[in-house]
Amino acid sequence: MKILALDSSGLVASVAITEDDLLIAEYDIQYKKTHSQTLLPMMDEICRMTDLDSASLDAVALAAGPGSFTGLRIGSATAKGLGFALGIPLIEVPTLEGLAYNLYGTADCICPLMDARRGQVYTGIYEFAWENAEGAGDGSGGRAEYSMKTLEPQCAVAAEDIVRKLNAIGRRTIFLGDGVPVFREQLAKQMQVEYSFAPAHMNRQRAASIAALGGIYMKKGKTVPAAEHAPVYLRLSQAERERNERHGRESGE
Amino acid sequence: MKILALDSSGLVASVAITEDDLLIAEYDIQYKKTHSQTLLPMMDEICRMTDLDSASLDAVALAAGPGSFTGLRIGSATAKGLGFALGIPLIEVPTLEGLAYNLYGTADCICPLMDARRGQVYTGIYEFAWENAEGAGDGSGGRAEYSMKTLEPQCAVAAEDIVRKLNAIGRRTIFLGDGVPVFREQLAKQMQVEYSFAPAHMNRQRAASIAALGGIYMKKGKTVPAAEHAPVYLRLSQAERERNERHGRESGE
Repeated sequence: MKILALDSSGLVASVAITEDDLLIAEYDIQYKKTHSQTLLPMMDEICRMTDLDSASLDAVALAAGPGSFTGLRIGSATAKGLGFALGIPLIEVPTLEGLAYNLYGTADCICPLMDARRGQVYTGIYEFAWENAEGAGDGSGGRAEYSMKTLEPQCAVAAEDIVRKLNAIGRRTIFLGDGVPVFREQLAKQMQVEYSFAPAHMNRQRAASIAALGGIYMKKGKTVPAAEHAPVYLRLSQAERERNERHGRESGE
Repeated sequence: MKILALDSSGLVASVAITEDDLLIAEYDIQYKKTHSQTLLPMMDEICRMTDLDSASLDAVALAAGPGSFTGLRIGSATAKGLGFALGIPLIEVPTLEGLAYNLYGTADCICPLMDARRGQVYTGIYEFAWENAEGAGDGSGGRAEYSMKTLEPQCAVAAEDIVRKLNAIGRRTIFLGDGVPVFREQLAKQMQVEYSFAPAHMNRQRAASIAALGGIYMKKGKTVPAAEHAPVYLRLSQAERERNERHGRESGE
């Protein structure tokens, strides 16, 4: 199963190609260029470098939101165009799940934090459970896999709300994402359980994680036709909020 | 602290740039091209894409071996050239440590396996310990970090030797590396503890892991001048073995 994946939900532009459990290529950039400047040239670069036959692709996986409104629209438009042109389905991976999947195998709670501005974070709480062991439990070994569980689905909340939930769960927590530098001091004040920050090689969006998790989604039949995909924003955009406020004023609300 | 990192120890060609705990760029290719065709163009690509000022680099980190003899020599020659030209030190990260660092935060034993041919694997056993908690232990939370510990330093051994050690340790184990497909059946027969295989986004060499671990090495002062670096092969090359055998025969040994 060959998957082309992309993540443009945040400051990182990332593209990857996987074939089953092999990462054929990944290219990540976190730099001040816009995704409209980087994403397609990066995709072209890895396809060229690996002589990719686009007809061999089975699906396009993407970080389907939440995230930067412009970033999500660039990612969605690109994925829809590819899916439509190649006649293959899309795999919509929730952005926060993709981020959490970077930390496959950890025993701690995983809490991705994306700065959502206006005092909020896009966040969620995840953990990995050891599962599907073949022959496990009889003392003879056996192969198992970690499967990611959602303790708190992705949402847009004040940072203190997610901290309260983590304190209630009471387990060690690993934070990651571009919200970490923004909310670092608040975490130090409010976290009542031990916590850690993920290091450089796993603390931001990775299309390779979107592809790996996307493969699991696809095996469960969770795909959508390209025409039906729309990104998940979780909140109204600034333009929509302002329009609603205007309408509210105009109608005397 | 800005680090340029590369890993050409196996089938993957990988380059990355980190600045402190931020991954600025990473580019990984696992394809049938040789590292001499891929490594420098990939490095050029990410430097160009991020407008890298090479004078801003503090060190070059590399997977210093073991691994493919040709791959290691290409990586070492590249790193030495860069270090010499830029007047910055090299950080020699043992290849197997770099691989294990992909799985930062897991509670299990980590066993990277690289196919070393001739019935052997390059391998080692690692774990992560929760450490340096600020204010931990008094029930008030506090930040900590995982630090990687070596349970078995990198070595070239028969796969059954490392399996015996893992069974003696008796803990869940996550395997990764290009040795997994080669020794998968043997592991199923001989492993007496539960085990798992790392998924696509973390089961092969990543220069981002070399950079992240390299940053820790550098803080501890573990760098070498470019002129002093030499890769660690752990075994004699085929040419050296054949020469020694010839010498042995010639001297009647």
